[in-house]
Amino acid sequence: MLTKLREEKVFKDPVHHSIYVQDVTIWKLINTPEFQRLRRIRQLGTSYLTFHGAEHSRFSHSLGVYEITRKIISRFERNEYPDWPKDENLLSLCASLLHDIGHGPFSHSLEQVFHTDHEQWTCDIILGDTGVNRVLREVDPGFPDKVASVICKTYHKPIVVSLVSSQMDADRMDYLLRDAHFTGVNYGTFDLDRILRVLRPNKDRIVVKESGMHAVEDYLMSRYQMYWQVYFHPVTRSSEIVLRQIFRRARKLHDSGFEFKFLLPPLRQLLEGSMTVHSYLMLDEAMVQTAFGQWKLEKDELLADLCRRFLERDLYKYIPLEHGEESWIEELRQQWERIGLNPEYDLEVDIPTDLPYDVYKPGALPDSREKPPILLLDDKEQLTEISHKSEIIRSIAGLQRGKYYIYYPESKVLPHALKLSAAIREKLYI
Amino acid sequence: MLTKLREEKVFKDPVHHSIYVQDVTIWKLINTPEFQRLRRIRQLGTSYLTFHGAEHSRFSHSLGVYEITRKIISRFERNEYPDWPKDENLLSLCASLLHDIGHGPFSHSLEQVFHTDHEQWTCDIILGDTGVNRVLREVDPGFPDKVASVICKTYHKPIVVSLVSSQMDADRMDYLLRDAHFTGVNYGTFDLDRILRVLRPNKDRIVVKESGMHAVEDYLMSRYQMYWQVYFHPVTRSSEIVLRQIFRRARKLHDSGFEFKFLLPPLRQLLEGSMTVHSYLMLDEAMVQTAFGQWKLEKDELLADLCRRFLERDLYKYIPLEHGEESWIEELRQQWERIGLNPEYDLEVDIPTDLPYDVYKPGALPDSREKPPILLLDDKEQLTEISHKSEIIRSIAGLQRGKYYIYYPESKVLPHALKLSAAIREKLYI
Amino acid sequence: MLTKLREEKVFKDPVHHSIYVQDVTIWKLINTPEFQRLRRIRQLGTSYLTFHGAEHSRFSHSLGVYEITRKIISRFERNEYPDWPKDENLLSLCASLLHDIGHGPFSHSLEQVFHTDHEQWTCDIILGDTGVNRVLREVDPGFPDKVASVICKTYHKPIVVSLVSSQMDADRMDYLLRDAHFTGVNYGTFDLDRILRVLRPNKDRIVVKESGMHAVEDYLMSRYQMYWQVYFHPVTRSSEIVLRQIFRRARKLHDSGFEFKFLLPPLRQLLEGSMTVHSYLMLDEAMVQTAFGQWKLEKDELLADLCRRFLERDLYKYIPLEHGEESWIEELRQQWERIGLNPEYDLEVDIPTDLPYDVYKPGALPDSREKPPILLLDDKEQLTEISHKSEIIRSIAGLQRGKYYIYYPESKVLPHALKLSAAIREKLYI
Amino acid sequence: MLTKLREEKVFKDPVHHSIYVQDVTIWKLINTPEFQRLRRIRQLGTSYLTFHGAEHSRFSHSLGVYEITRKIISRFERNEYPDWPKDENLLSLCASLLHDIGHGPFSHSLEQVFHTDHEQWTCDIILGDTGVNRVLREVDPGFPDKVASVICKTYHKPIVVSLVSSQMDADRMDYLLRDAHFTGVNYGTFDLDRILRVLRPNKDRIVVKESGMHAVEDYLMSRYQMYWQVYFHPVTRSSEIVLRQIFRRARKLHDSGFEFKFLLPPLRQLLEGSMTVHSYLMLDEAMVQTAFGQWKLEKDELLADLCRRFLERDLYKYIPLEHGEESWIEELRQQWERIGLNPEYDLEVDIPTDLPYDVYKPGALPDSREKPPILLLDDKEQLTEISHKSEIIRSIAGLQRGKYYIYYPESKVLPHALKLSAAIREKLYI
Repeated sequence: MLTKLREEKVFKDPVHHSIYVQDVTIWKLINTPEFQRLRRIRQLGTSYLTFHGAEHSRFSHSLGVYEITRKIISRFERNEYPDWPKDENLLSLCASLLHDIGHGPFSHSLEQVFHTDHEQWTCDIILGDTGVNRVLREVDPGFPDKVASVICKTYHKPIVVSLVSSQMDADRMDYLLRDAHFTGVNYGTFDLDRILRVLRPNKDRIVVKESGMHAVEDYLMSRYQMYWQVYFHPVTRSSEIVLRQIFRRARKLHDSGFEFKFLLPPLRQLLEGSMTVHSYLMLDEAMVQTAFGQWKLEKDELLADLCRRFLERDLYKYIPLEHGEESWIEELRQQWERIGLNPEYDLEVDIPTDLPYDVYKPGALPDSREKPPILLLDDKEQLTEISHKSEIIRSIAGLQRGKYYIYYPESKVLPHALKLSAAIREKLYI
Repeated sequence: MLTKLREEKVFKDPVHHSIYVQDVTIWKLINTPEFQRLRRIRQLGTSYLTFHGAEHSRFSHSLGVYEITRKIISRFERNEYPDWPKDENLLSLCASLLHDIGHGPFSHSLEQVFHTDHEQWTCDIILGDTGVNRVLREVDPGFPDKVASVICKTYHKPIVVSLVSSQMDADRMDYLLRDAHFTGVNYGTFDLDRILRVLRPNKDRIVVKESGMHAVEDYLMSRYQMYWQVYFHPVTRSSEIVLRQIFRRARKLHDSGFEFKFLLPPLRQLLEGSMTVHSYLMLDEAMVQTAFGQWKLEKDELLADLCRRFLERDLYKYIPLEHGEESWIEELRQQWERIGLNPEYDLEVDIPTDLPYDVYKPGALPDSREKPPILLLDDKEQLTEISHKSEIIRSIAGLQRGKYYIYYPESKVLPHALKLSAAIREKLYI
Repeated sequence: MLTKLREEKVFKDPVHHSIYVQDVTIWKLINTPEFQRLRRIRQLGTSYLTFHGAEHSRFSHSLGVYEITRKIISRFERNEYPDWPKDENLLSLCASLLHDIGHGPFSHSLEQVFHTDHEQWTCDIILGDTGVNRVLREVDPGFPDKVASVICKTYHKPIVVSLVSSQMDADRMDYLLRDAHFTGVNYGTFDLDRILRVLRPNKDRIVVKESGMHAVEDYLMSRYQMYWQVYFHPVTRSSEIVLRQIFRRARKLHDSGFEFKFLLPPLRQLLEGSMTVHSYLMLDEAMVQTAFGQWKLEKDELLADLCRRFLERDLYKYIPLEHGEESWIEELRQQWERIGLNPEYDLEVDIPTDLPYDVYKPGALPDSREKPPILLLDDKEQLTEISHKSEIIRSIAGLQRGKYYIYYPESKVLPHALKLSAAIREKLYI
Repeated sequence: MLTKLREEKVFKDPVHHSIYVQDVTIWKLINTPEFQRLRRIRQLGTSYLTFHGAEHSRFSHSLGVYEITRKIISRFERNEYPDWPKDENLLSLCASLLHDIGHGPFSHSLEQVFHTDHEQWTCDIILGDTGVNRVLREVDPGFPDKVASVICKTYHKPIVVSLVSSQMDADRMDYLLRDAHFTGVNYGTFDLDRILRVLRPNKDRIVVKESGMHAVEDYLMSRYQMYWQVYFHPVTRSSEIVLRQIFRRARKLHDSGFEFKFLLPPLRQLLEGSMTVHSYLMLDEAMVQTAFGQWKLEKDELLADLCRRFLERDLYKYIPLEHGEESWIEELRQQWERIGLNPEYDLEVDIPTDLPYDVYKPGALPDSREKPPILLLDDKEQLTEISHKSEIIRSIAGLQRGKYYIYYPESKVLPHALKLSAAIREKLYI
């Protein structure tokens, strides 16, 4: 039941120029408190500390994913492709719009420390006592369940799932373009229009017309560049490390009975692991940053220093570690202890592959959570996995670059520099 | 004393592509806590509620103003224009970088309610006990005073002031381009490179080579478009009205002895009018938004509702008022009272000319705070005020479009609609 | 009878990204010899001698006009506006595509010398024994007549005419954007998507939704900038003057019985004024430039020199003439004769208003060939001429800037400089 | 001896925004007849028949190469890199500007048929009795020789050669960006500013700072995409085949004593292989196209048909030939003869590797004409060939995709379709 708005609404968007809302349900979803809350959560977490332009929110991105989905669907309709189930249009649009509604502030870091899961929160918000749930139920009492199942990839029509989640889904296409626009990194752009033009619904998935192979190559290379130049940038990793240590320290203090002068209920629940949906929805970046501003004044020096570091962007220094240099880590730990530093907080080894990433993986096991491969559709309606046809993609598929970095607070080390071994000093350029 | 960095630092910027930092002083200023704090203050205040992309901060803008100033200065140097005082380069760069350092969260709205002045805060921060002051004093003990006087337009070399503050200063050029980029409004762009190419230092001011007249016309038209389509957008005005009413209500409650459950010291000082520099620097958008989230739970229904409206973007409705319709205002006020609404909070008349704006004003009185006119320099080294040569600018100069709007909370009015006069109902489309 | 192609054809276009051809008739028209010939005729005539990027052809522009028309029509269809006559779609598309098919090489200059008319040639080609005519007759024997009447503005449904020819027609929108792209002049761009979104069919014309007023202002200002910075650029005018003098000289020589060593039949017919459609279609820029290359070797020194000047871009020098300086013209003529120059060829006074141009004219007399004004459609379906609502447009409407320039071959004057009066020497900077 | 212009000249450029000319010599070179002639030679030969926007000339490209070289050099100067020989600035700029001055119309096709060599013509023009030579000799009598030796890669300072000719030279950087701009193919763009920022003069070559590795990856991928999507596009290949056959036929006819009704001296010399510099400079695309227009009327039906095909873009059809299908070629030849076609003109097998192309080749033999590899310079001033550090480049280096295509005039085959074998008919989709 897709009720049209009397007049279509237009959002001006820096990436897609215009975003068109034509359905009452979509319009109402955008205006729920839960969706508006996404304005207070940055799309790229701490990346704005590396790329100052990266201050855009998940609100913008969610609208963008919706818009790409809308474009794909309306092209499918206009061309009357028989394999696209037209009665799933509203479902697809709602799932696209809401797929990130469960994200909290600095999700990736928070999830690592507190083992929460934004996808679970997404379902809780869609199915719980929320504005979003009320709007979806107006469509049909079972509609919230359907939307949640599409986002959790369990919906019984895989083609709908694949629109929202695949190697070339609307989510990725929007974030690559949007993050490139806001960071100012122009090697992240690709030809969206051309890619949209070559997508075809085919049985239970979305495939690519063979003539679009080069456009896909270009898209995968853009993705590769964005990963290495933006998402895995060592300065961003450094700020995430500081962030995680703040949370780890706060939890430890709380566990040991420390009395915080400032601890609003959602933060208390976060530290205790007893978060409710209602509290989760109050937890935004504003609250986290306000807490850091207050914790800077707490008695625990470590916590205060970490919070100051984050707010003043006085991050940990990093040095790369080549393959075969792993023995340095233990060496550093020992010398750190010798000079009175705490390796638990003052030393971190990081390898970016804890983030989900591959240039492209041609084969995914049937029941894995991995994204299925990209298939090319030729003139004779035959499907071929793309790396069989593209030498470029075959060459780069599965490339995994894992550079180790070591992070530490330089200002804590410098006063003791003379006590460090000469080899370590050379390694740290001090 | 301009100490060069060993290696120039580059910031990736979506507007200027790259921002180059070559001086130690500039690099240190960027890394002060006060400058990093600008990351937590949006450039366009509440405009992100109208244009979702407008989430960029004053940090980005300040870097941009610095970069434009740097480009102008280095062109002046390269061409060895005799009227440019080369020994003022560092001063100009510092003043550009720091000109907005006194901005607080949602400055324009706050200043209207609390009668504070961001320019005064700028001077207090530059001259007070701050990181910024310490870095500037390293250059020379009198240097902070010089920087402050350039920003306050009292410096004894007017050409330096005019670089930072004039009809075509680095500040305006950056914000027009930046706001256009982030809102996605592309009629705000103009040809920056060309304008930079035609600027000339001439005695005690910056003038424009006559051949650049069309570029200036284009710049002024972009500015005009940005004002009417972005800065004065009625939805933005509506959100500012809600914001101002929150602050007015909070102050009134505080004055009357209301006990806030949540009121961090900087907010308390704000309501009391006893703000110190130290507290002011802790007051950022995160703290204001966190306060609103908590005030939503306060007992005062009006305050709670206003805060909810702001966070959920449930803004006041607006209707335009044509010239000659001013009598409606009194009429509405009376009917509002009749149906139990409070005109003090539930009705606001707004005319955007309380913001500083003209398309362009050719003549400014010598001692006024108004920006001096734009002068064209011809082949014979004669200066002419631009509107004497450009028919376009002559035509638009002084155009003042003041459209009245009336704002009110529609959801409070609708239940009583039948009690309103038919004329009012028609006017309000209900 | 609109027969769809089995698969839509896509032209990659630098301005519109993609151009979509969906109808068999359009596809066939593009592939006629007459349409392919437009590849050999530059869109901007001699402007490439001023802006080296301006080397694009009328072929590209014609496709662009077609594409804008297609976009407007399909939006009209999608929104089911009742005032748009759907059965005129193919007619509108064909007229858009073919509206410039009668252009020859350097049309504007040629037409001034030989008093031909490209609109007349357009009709002759559409109605004559040509590939274009054959394709159109396949639709319906009367179809060529209908297409010609739309282009000549005599078709009985004015709304179709206004799509192809009005203040904001597809023709102008494409050339402004395209010329800006290829010259690299970025103040010529405007927001095409937004303008397309606010066009509405209304009775027998196309009007603009009131909310699009600012977009129209921006469009008119872009047009104004393009006229003064590109179309009327004095270097372009200089090259057109050289071109016209070549043709005038060649005709004069031919009239007086001069035997050209190189004179292909179409050129001979041009000089004689006896051109047939068949010959006209062979006359392209290649032939004209080849002729100039050969005429450089002819015995007539004046012709040879003019041709050399054109090919080597050794153009006439220009100096501006202010209002009230008209007496210089006669003075120059006399002194020119005194030093043995021929004022007929060695001196030209130019005022660009011989080209059809106004910033915008609000009122056109009913039966004039002038474009009708732009009308705004408000919420109550009332129409208002735009300059009544837009102060900007009211201010600039009717602005006419006519700067005189004097053009002459400097190298012919310099050797005799000492014989000129001091006043003239100063005026000419020699 | 680098004489500065009193005022720098600026060319508006769609790719580089502005092109700055500061030296008298450069300004004079641009204004020679030989350089102006490049306006009449398209940069991409027949590609405009595939991408209608590709109508830009070698004039524009040559200015662009000059501008990139100027930017590189002035960055080298500003940073005072000791390995850059400053006294070679003017030489580098002249060589950049003139490197393509020997190109004729449709060079690649012409060179294949007539075995001429544009690099040889370049030297002949620089060293011959030309305007270019006169301007260069004003600098120094030996200067023309130096310029020619840089272009021919024999100059004794290899670093100057490498600026103009290497894997990442100014020539390639400009043409990739320019061709992408004009065709509208946006996957051909890369981040020029960033690449310029990481180039370093190092002993006798230009190397890349290691931090720029990703920018180089992006550049190589753009190049790869441009090759396969633009330069090797089968429609372009088809038009080149038609072009070559016109020339082959014309030569054959001329050799056999055929009397052309139209054959200007430069064309006659071309067919005879007796071309002088003076004639070569008169041979431009205008003359070639005019000849085709006249040859359409010649008695030789084959020549007339080929010329008509070229002018009306009625090109040969193409079908791909997979590996292992080479036997089709002989089969087609036989059947062609059976149905009365002439395999010499009516059948062409094409594999694009006759054009100089590799994605990237890490190792070039010392004395080969191949471009030397790209070297990365790390923090310790060590050089490493890039494919040792970049997995992406290692993966794609040496990739060679050679797809065979068969080209033939479909309209000549169709009438005899029934006489062809069923297998052939299926292969040809008839």
